[in-house]
Amino acid sequence: MSSSLLFTSDTRADGVRERDFTVGEIPGVLWSPESDPGLAPLVLVGHGGGIHKKAPASAGRARRLVLGLGFHVAAIDAPGHGDRPRTDHDEREIDAMFAAREAGQPEGPIIVRYNAHLAEQAVPEWSATLDALQELPEIGTGGPVGYWGINMGTATGVPFVASDDRITAAVFGQHWPDFLVEPARRITVPIEFDLQWDDEHLPRAAGLELFDAFASKEKTLHANAGRHKQLPRFEADSAVRFFARHLGTPAAAAAAA
Amino acid sequence: MSSSLLFTSDTRADGVRERDFTVGEIPGVLWSPESDPGLAPLVLVGHGGGIHKKAPASAGRARRLVLGLGFHVAAIDAPGHGDRPRTDHDEREIDAMFAAREAGQPEGPIIVRYNAHLAEQAVPEWSATLDALQELPEIGTGGPVGYWGINMGTATGVPFVASDDRITAAVFGQHWPDFLVEPARRITVPIEFDLQWDDEHLPRAAGLELFDAFASKEKTLHANAGRHKQLPRFEADSAVRFFARHLGTPAAAAAAA
Repeated sequence: MSSSLLFTSDTRADGVRERDFTVGEIPGVLWSPESDPGLAPLVLVGHGGGIHKKAPASAGRARRLVLGLGFHVAAIDAPGHGDRPRTDHDEREIDAMFAAREAGQPEGPIIVRYNAHLAEQAVPEWSATLDALQELPEIGTGGPVGYWGINMGTATGVPFVASDDRITAAVFGQHWPDFLVEPARRITVPIEFDLQWDDEHLPRAAGLELFDAFASKEKTLHANAGRHKQLPRFEADSAVRFFARHLGTPAAAAAAA
Repeated sequence: MSSSLLFTSDTRADGVRERDFTVGEIPGVLWSPESDPGLAPLVLVGHGGGIHKKAPASAGRARRLVLGLGFHVAAIDAPGHGDRPRTDHDEREIDAMFAAREAGQPEGPIIVRYNAHLAEQAVPEWSATLDALQELPEIGTGGPVGYWGINMGTATGVPFVASDDRITAAVFGQHWPDFLVEPARRITVPIEFDLQWDDEHLPRAAGLELFDAFASKEKTLHANAGRHKQLPRFEADSAVRFFARHLGTPAAAAAAA
């Protein structure tokens, strides 16, 4: 897979420049400081299941990273999500998930199976997107790149970060171990990992097992009291500080280029 | 126990005013902004085993809170520590601890037993110290008060915070559950809790059991890869932000008085 990046829109508001793009079939968005920052670190944001690249969680992270640190932030729609078509397989899995929910049965096994399927497609898409982003002069090759994705963003992110050594720091969390333990064992870059202590879907031991699997010398678990959707907003601030520590500053990125 | 606070020294350097004090037999230190801040939140710092009220970990926390937030910070020597005499019981327990270490046996059971003994004495000492500190016009009654203590500072801090409702937020960590589970179940104020994922003394399940016991609706576990003494320095910065979130600002404290 090798396609260049085509910008399809370019708007500026409240300090943030937002450019929609495509890389082949993949729709994405690149957020940057409104006043051209030149070369700066890049963070890739993977969205959660059932939402899309510009959902509030992703757009909020982007604002924090762009306005707080002067970074570039890119997000793409996962297969079957956002502006991308759903296949029959997507529809069947989504139906199965809702059926389990209505029947009061655990959704976990279906989510794990479906996310594993999506991750297989999404990992090469992330690599191709990063290839294309690195052709932009304000990103370039060799600069620091982070990845930030919780839930389904972790299902894709763990195999992606394990397979792409351009990623130098990552924030993950809130996912079953299953197919992620093997790639997690190959990850050695610094990790911050979020988990909800009272998650009604993800058993505590399962969440801890995935955190345990990372080979990273620096890894930090942030486990908060609360249910699956109650991840505190201050964890987004913490993730921004984590990337500031590990990816450096726009000035440092420019000096190293 | 009711004694007033007597200042025994008063120095100013690098932005921090440091006043040694005694409350009865208890030697303590109060750190404040060098330029009199007026009424400001107070954080009590409990030191770890074998060290003392001005050891680098405590003095470093004080500098961060004083210079970063404009808070007051107080620390006292635990029984048998710092400027306080050791009893025969202290000597026996310390000997037993070193003997276990040299024999390659687990120190945990001795530390737990000794810390439980010290906490029984130290809890009323902390309450008496806080009584006396609150008589100072720059602290006053009714203002927000935090507690920050890891290791032995948690052994004393958990029963102290459970018994003294003046404490409105606390940072704990790195201790066995044992005698702390019962008081932890009575604590409902926000908690940040540090744990080392690869602690060679404290089994992981034991550390998690203590975190699990707190009744606090807001509690956050920070578990970092690394051994007992490798708690990353960025956790001190995180604790300072935690207190900033929960204790407010000097200006707010003054306005509320």
